[in-house]
Amino acid sequence: MLTSHGRFIFGGDWNPEQWDESVWERDIDMLKDAHINEATINVFSWAQLQPSLERYDFSVLDRIVSLLVSNDFNIILATSTAALPGWLVREYPDVLRMDADGVRHVFGGRHNFCPNSVVFRRLSSKLAGALAQRYSDVAGLRYWHVGNEYGGGGGMCYCPRCAERFRTWLRGKYGDLDSLNRAWCTHVWSHTIVDWADIVPPVTFGDGIGVEKAVISGLLLDYRRFQNQAQLDCFINERDAIRRFDRQTPITTNLMGTFKDLDYFSWGKQMDVVSWDNYPGMDTEPSYTAMCHDLMRSVGGGKPFLLMEQTPNQQNWFPYCAVKKPGEVRALSWQAVAHGADSVQFFQLRQSLGGCERFHGAVIGHDGTEKTRVFAETRRLGAELADIGAGISGSAVVSRVAIMFDWDSYWSLEGCVGPTQGFSYPREIHRFYKPLHAMNVSVDMIESTASLETMMKYSLVIAPTLIMVKAGVGERIGEYVSRGGRFVTGYMSGIHDENDLVIPGGYPGPLREVCGVWVEEMDALAPGTTVPVVFESGGKPRGGRIIADVMHLETAESLAAYAGDSFYSGTPAVSVNRHGDGFAYYVGTALDESGMNDVIVPILKDLGIPMIHTPEGVEVCRRWRGEGDCVEFLMNMTDREYAGDVRLAPYEVRVSPRREK
Amino acid sequence: MLTSHGRFIFGGDWNPEQWDESVWERDIDMLKDAHINEATINVFSWAQLQPSLERYDFSVLDRIVSLLVSNDFNIILATSTAALPGWLVREYPDVLRMDADGVRHVFGGRHNFCPNSVVFRRLSSKLAGALAQRYSDVAGLRYWHVGNEYGGGGGMCYCPRCAERFRTWLRGKYGDLDSLNRAWCTHVWSHTIVDWADIVPPVTFGDGIGVEKAVISGLLLDYRRFQNQAQLDCFINERDAIRRFDRQTPITTNLMGTFKDLDYFSWGKQMDVVSWDNYPGMDTEPSYTAMCHDLMRSVGGGKPFLLMEQTPNQQNWFPYCAVKKPGEVRALSWQAVAHGADSVQFFQLRQSLGGCERFHGAVIGHDGTEKTRVFAETRRLGAELADIGAGISGSAVVSRVAIMFDWDSYWSLEGCVGPTQGFSYPREIHRFYKPLHAMNVSVDMIESTASLETMMKYSLVIAPTLIMVKAGVGERIGEYVSRGGRFVTGYMSGIHDENDLVIPGGYPGPLREVCGVWVEEMDALAPGTTVPVVFESGGKPRGGRIIADVMHLETAESLAAYAGDSFYSGTPAVSVNRHGDGFAYYVGTALDESGMNDVIVPILKDLGIPMIHTPEGVEVCRRWRGEGDCVEFLMNMTDREYAGDVRLAPYEVRVSPRREK
Amino acid sequence: MLTSHGRFIFGGDWNPEQWDESVWERDIDMLKDAHINEATINVFSWAQLQPSLERYDFSVLDRIVSLLVSNDFNIILATSTAALPGWLVREYPDVLRMDADGVRHVFGGRHNFCPNSVVFRRLSSKLAGALAQRYSDVAGLRYWHVGNEYGGGGGMCYCPRCAERFRTWLRGKYGDLDSLNRAWCTHVWSHTIVDWADIVPPVTFGDGIGVEKAVISGLLLDYRRFQNQAQLDCFINERDAIRRFDRQTPITTNLMGTFKDLDYFSWGKQMDVVSWDNYPGMDTEPSYTAMCHDLMRSVGGGKPFLLMEQTPNQQNWFPYCAVKKPGEVRALSWQAVAHGADSVQFFQLRQSLGGCERFHGAVIGHDGTEKTRVFAETRRLGAELADIGAGISGSAVVSRVAIMFDWDSYWSLEGCVGPTQGFSYPREIHRFYKPLHAMNVSVDMIESTASLETMMKYSLVIAPTLIMVKAGVGERIGEYVSRGGRFVTGYMSGIHDENDLVIPGGYPGPLREVCGVWVEEMDALAPGTTVPVVFESGGKPRGGRIIADVMHLETAESLAAYAGDSFYSGTPAVSVNRHGDGFAYYVGTALDESGMNDVIVPILKDLGIPMIHTPEGVEVCRRWRGEGDCVEFLMNMTDREYAGDVRLAPYEVRVSPRREK
Repeated sequence: MLTSHGRFIFGGDWNPEQWDESVWERDIDMLKDAHINEATINVFSWAQLQPSLERYDFSVLDRIVSLLVSNDFNIILATSTAALPGWLVREYPDVLRMDADGVRHVFGGRHNFCPNSVVFRRLSSKLAGALAQRYSDVAGLRYWHVGNEYGGGGGMCYCPRCAERFRTWLRGKYGDLDSLNRAWCTHVWSHTIVDWADIVPPVTFGDGIGVEKAVISGLLLDYRRFQNQAQLDCFINERDAIRRFDRQTPITTNLMGTFKDLDYFSWGKQMDVVSWDNYPGMDTEPSYTAMCHDLMRSVGGGKPFLLMEQTPNQQNWFPYCAVKKPGEVRALSWQAVAHGADSVQFFQLRQSLGGCERFHGAVIGHDGTEKTRVFAETRRLGAELADIGAGISGSAVVSRVAIMFDWDSYWSLEGCVGPTQGFSYPREIHRFYKPLHAMNVSVDMIESTASLETMMKYSLVIAPTLIMVKAGVGERIGEYVSRGGRFVTGYMSGIHDENDLVIPGGYPGPLREVCGVWVEEMDALAPGTTVPVVFESGGKPRGGRIIADVMHLETAESLAAYAGDSFYSGTPAVSVNRHGDGFAYYVGTALDESGMNDVIVPILKDLGIPMIHTPEGVEVCRRWRGEGDCVEFLMNMTDREYAGDVRLAPYEVRVSPRREK
Repeated sequence: MLTSHGRFIFGGDWNPEQWDESVWERDIDMLKDAHINEATINVFSWAQLQPSLERYDFSVLDRIVSLLVSNDFNIILATSTAALPGWLVREYPDVLRMDADGVRHVFGGRHNFCPNSVVFRRLSSKLAGALAQRYSDVAGLRYWHVGNEYGGGGGMCYCPRCAERFRTWLRGKYGDLDSLNRAWCTHVWSHTIVDWADIVPPVTFGDGIGVEKAVISGLLLDYRRFQNQAQLDCFINERDAIRRFDRQTPITTNLMGTFKDLDYFSWGKQMDVVSWDNYPGMDTEPSYTAMCHDLMRSVGGGKPFLLMEQTPNQQNWFPYCAVKKPGEVRALSWQAVAHGADSVQFFQLRQSLGGCERFHGAVIGHDGTEKTRVFAETRRLGAELADIGAGISGSAVVSRVAIMFDWDSYWSLEGCVGPTQGFSYPREIHRFYKPLHAMNVSVDMIESTASLETMMKYSLVIAPTLIMVKAGVGERIGEYVSRGGRFVTGYMSGIHDENDLVIPGGYPGPLREVCGVWVEEMDALAPGTTVPVVFESGGKPRGGRIIADVMHLETAESLAAYAGDSFYSGTPAVSVNRHGDGFAYYVGTALDESGMNDVIVPILKDLGIPMIHTPEGVEVCRRWRGEGDCVEFLMNMTDREYAGDVRLAPYEVRVSPRREK
Repeated sequence: MLTSHGRFIFGGDWNPEQWDESVWERDIDMLKDAHINEATINVFSWAQLQPSLERYDFSVLDRIVSLLVSNDFNIILATSTAALPGWLVREYPDVLRMDADGVRHVFGGRHNFCPNSVVFRRLSSKLAGALAQRYSDVAGLRYWHVGNEYGGGGGMCYCPRCAERFRTWLRGKYGDLDSLNRAWCTHVWSHTIVDWADIVPPVTFGDGIGVEKAVISGLLLDYRRFQNQAQLDCFINERDAIRRFDRQTPITTNLMGTFKDLDYFSWGKQMDVVSWDNYPGMDTEPSYTAMCHDLMRSVGGGKPFLLMEQTPNQQNWFPYCAVKKPGEVRALSWQAVAHGADSVQFFQLRQSLGGCERFHGAVIGHDGTEKTRVFAETRRLGAELADIGAGISGSAVVSRVAIMFDWDSYWSLEGCVGPTQGFSYPREIHRFYKPLHAMNVSVDMIESTASLETMMKYSLVIAPTLIMVKAGVGERIGEYVSRGGRFVTGYMSGIHDENDLVIPGGYPGPLREVCGVWVEEMDALAPGTTVPVVFESGGKPRGGRIIADVMHLETAESLAAYAGDSFYSGTPAVSVNRHGDGFAYYVGTALDESGMNDVIVPILKDLGIPMIHTPEGVEVCRRWRGEGDCVEFLMNMTDREYAGDVRLAPYEVRVSPRREK
């Protein structure tokens, strides 16, 4: 079913409304030549579709759709609501966002509507509905694509209307001010709220400390939740408008990996299928990209996802945009498929001549010919996907290990004022992900509030820097371990409750019993400094960075100890605790790669999880079509030759069916 | 008398209104266990004390006070006016500050009232008065603590009301526009003022160049003076309100060392006792902290001061907050006492669960127990202070050397556009302070406008980067030297008059005659470069940084000359001039530590001032109880062992009474 | 004629209105002693000249002029309109600029009027006219100096009035919205304009990406053109007011070299003579300063120019301002003359006591005497100029090589979002200028739209990073080469049309045929990385930086190829193409100095252009008085001795007449 038209979706963004119609047919010929079978259209055409409040004009879109239909293309039809027409901004200036410094946007840019704008909600759903009414029966229509990269390049809105709605939202959440004052610990610095009207969003000239921190961090957390919901409501609003006219075409919007501002688990629940835009930078490790795919697949409930965008060559918006090397885009495409993608799509099919993305790579470049390396590589990939893609679509990724990815902890950890500003939440998740990736062990991402049933599906659950432990979570983790599960956590975990208040009684709070340790102090290490960590199992000293928990074993045993000349030298750095039938591990410092391997690999060994050690950037993945029937992907994501059991050229990829238990 | 209740004050900030009353008794038990005898309360409770314009509610505070009284605590009672209630901001939005970029603050944060707000003045003095009326007779009330860290984390207010008051203030100062135009040299860039109404505060979108510099620097200087006075008037306003009900309890507010925005000498004159908050960073040299203590003692007229705040463990607001090492807090506490503190107080007695300071160290941590290292160290220090503290209280620090610390020169030096942006005023003060500290020579800080009588108390007066020489100052310095005093000054001195205009006739202006040199040029050195300086007395070449004065000896003799390949190689870098019965020294470049020693040590030797050379971080101080009766403090402020005449473990401190002339 | 009073102009800014009249006579005596014969006056006196809307007061200026006349000085009389009086701002607040972040300036600073302000236009022309009426007959009046450093330290204005005028300007330019939408490619991101009223200047809270880039770059380009024209109209407005009363005195304003915001070629056409302010920083290469002189001479149509300002010693506004070394100012002065200056003028003749420039060097320093090194050096230079200057005035610089300097390409190149942010347009111009300078080959700068006739004057025309190729330019370059010209261009050229849209069909677009190459990809190199480039002619590998074009030879031949391990190793990096009777060269990467020499020197050799190789900083120039009659300048612009055919001391300059063909 997901293999629309029986073909593996291969295509991308096509914006023919930007160039002369005389070029369109030529585009189609070239795209077909490259085995492209899909076009994502109408992403940014609101001003053309609706030249005034009173009037729609679908004539250009009609011709685009008609051309695609007659060429048997799959179509992903966007709703065009991610950038607002000038007339709309002129007539309703407050339809745009107000920044944290109090400045209201004016016409220009994109992704800058106020998510609580009544006008935006009304007009965007009206447009989405009109599109659905007109195009729902189009042959080849595969997906609806609502908006674009919600929140991208933007930040939250802090306008008076958002402030007002926020107060209403808080009233709904807390009921009375006593509860709110307790939840936010407002007696600090005389922040006690005596009237709902006194609540102000965390602007930089108010309670915000920049935009990532605030004096009252509960206020910031709640504002993030409120804004996430408002953006999500914008999506739902358009989605529902489409559903009134189209009962079945799946609806998506394109997410952005570890993007901070939106809790994608809440989004995944509202989307028929998850799609996302993968733009690794020059310095992005292949394992980080793999992690993002796993996260995106997981927010979609584990189903295959769409790789809605990637670049066929260089990006334009990094400070320095290297071209992609020969084979690199093919490797990135297969990596996505290996982790669960059921499409390979590009931004963009033809390079635009204007706009700030005009130097972004495209299948058809500014030269407009098939003669480019990029076009040739695209065609080769297209042929390959046409050949074997259909046999992969719909197949599953299966994991015995899960990592908790918790957007609240993301916001909370990076919102702390002290003990260190050294943390990036996704980087810490990646620290624990990396040894699994190096051993080619498949990983799912789960919410921290996952049910016990969900957790029990996994032999190992890892919760890096799970600073916020919501009600019931600690208990469920305890129960999971009691029943034989393995659980790994560590520094900066178990500190906050769901209101971002410290849970008193000693760190790691609700995880203290299951881990069997008490963390007395958290020493911040200056950038560039490390504390040596020696494992009981021997081996060279490893290095801890950023933070070093000074901890006491209560029921746990030490797995590694600090060395060096600090006063806590000789005290435990990593521990394990038997709890019921399982074990809980606590990692007291942000270990280097070898150190993380020393923690994780023995656990995998214990659990009998198959490991294949490959060096940095060489990856083995499987997708399962049924019991014992999988496709194996062997990928060299680097520009260096790999000479292990097999020999892989730079960026070489091998895809092979395999029957195995 | 200062040894309240006969006990050396040992305590700190306690904010029980932030947590459940059920915890309070337990707190008290723990604190007493740690020999804590003082609590600073009510620092940030305005919103709770006054839930609306019409109503006070002292019930919670009553219970806090009552519990402390019944436990025989010393009490420092704050007025709670440093953070404003939300309702007050909502009803009077202009009670808050406007930033230099024209943005008015909204509810949130702290220390952000407009110091010229009539509403703030009225309501803060009313609250202070009400508190005094209610609590002045409380047993154990030792000090009133007005507001908190005035100006901290803030910057000046640039609102229209401040602008209006500033114009009135200027009218009072200058009388007529001709005088103002002359004083500000406004004919530059057509800034001639023809109507008082044309004067605009130095906002960044006006005459300000950032907030530290301005086109018309006299405007900036005057604005700083005006804002300093406005903040001070806020303090006086509350102080006087208290005095109406409490005739005798001393009144203080907590200062912040070398904080730039407030001229603390003017504050010291209005305070019954000076108190301050000592927060050295990871890279702060112990000698810098010592210098701050000396400055704070000096702005209080040389009397013992209160160490109102320090952390019992790590801070939270540095980028990376290392934990304090074992013994470090004890050493810092004794260093404060050695320099004149009559209290050791912590922020904070119990760690809060919310607010942006929740990771700031506390005597009672988030775990809530006595089991921590921090609690144990606090208890040990408490026992020690209980044992010997009372014998130290009230004793004096005696100095034969004074350094001029001039807030106007601070503002003026850092306000210069050229010849270099390399200067930090406190760092230059520290450059001249350091050789004295290394020799364990006690130093007082004095105003540049100190009377001749005051100067004559000292054998040596040093004026680093005294860029502004106000009327009469040059003459007094000349007279001081004539009468046998030793005077040291140097680069960036004697340049500006009190209006921040250059004094024509050749640098160092009013100091030229006494120093016997004419500085023709000031060469700025790029960061990382030095000019070699060779002393006549021999020894290795020293290094000059930041600036190199090219100067001519008029009546002076050379003590050191530039070397290297600059065109002024061979010309004097340091000079001495006999003037009457004394000597004046001019240091033409910012010398490294050895170079500064080469300048200062011979003078001390000449003067017969006893020197004890100790390495970086090892310090010897004395406080005098009477003629020949002192307490000596021997302190190792480092984490390295010291093996000199005595052997000192890391952070070891020895306190011993000593009879000596 | 330009040698006014028969004397070579030697003087500078004199602002006696800033100090007491009692000093004036002394000033004049000192200046005459230094052979100074010119004073630039009245640059910033508007508030004094016009203390209110109704009243002028020329009394002080009368006395200044009269003193100068009686001392036989040349006078350059400024119009005083570059800084506005406070009363004017108070009465018309919108006379000042609004920044790109939406903040309207208030009184203070300078160069901050809104260039579209009707009030500014009216009052500035009225003042200029009044001055002309009063002083046009003054003996010694040599030039009118309108305003000051237009745009300096400022940025563009983004106020509502400018927005409104911009719309009108666009209407005039495009006629209808279809044309505008096409020109700006507005269908990108739904920017389609359906009503002129929807157009918003590229503010940072709108379509701007910072102030140097924008989503719709055509909008930014047009806004730059519009603002350039508005500023220029302010100049023209005052110029014409002067002309109503003074028919002949030449009128200038002081330009600023490679200043970005103004297209100085358009200014040069409106000025009787070009003058400019030369302020090399501590790190400015002498060849960069030489290039600026050539540019300034060229925007003035090749005529001699005025060196309106330079410092006689250190600047004040760099972060670190070293003093000028002995001889350095003399060398800089002669370098200016060698490149076409007919004056040597200083900012400033006497150092001010106030204002943010008070530490800027001056002929008469704060000491007020003749005893300084600076005064002595000035006097020596004055004597020299008095001796030989008159024989140089009016003589011509003659060049066989031209470089295209195109302000539109400046804006366009630095406005690109991708493929790299590594480009500074003037630095790339300098990259191609430097080998010519090293060989002491004289260079003119020409517009990219120069006529074929103009181009044909040169044997070699170079167009570095000519990213924008306007209509007809490509054709003219082709014709120029066909007829035997040599043309050099390269990376980032031929990409945009005049609307900043990519010209489709393959880079370098309109230059593809003449260069005979097709650039398929542009690889951005990270800072600090290089790609090796090996020339066919042999020699060590050179380094390419910032960008590496991956290109195909169509009719061209390879001159150099990439080496190293990139996938395009072995492909051409530099090429030459015979086209008709000439040759076109394409440089595919930003080569290091040796690499640029390898490109340029063989061409010069081929053309028989005489070369004199001198090391970095040693320069030979000629000015021609007539056929075969020139003055040769041999200059060492460094602080190191030069020992070549001749021996030159640091900063030594030799000026000698020479008869030669």
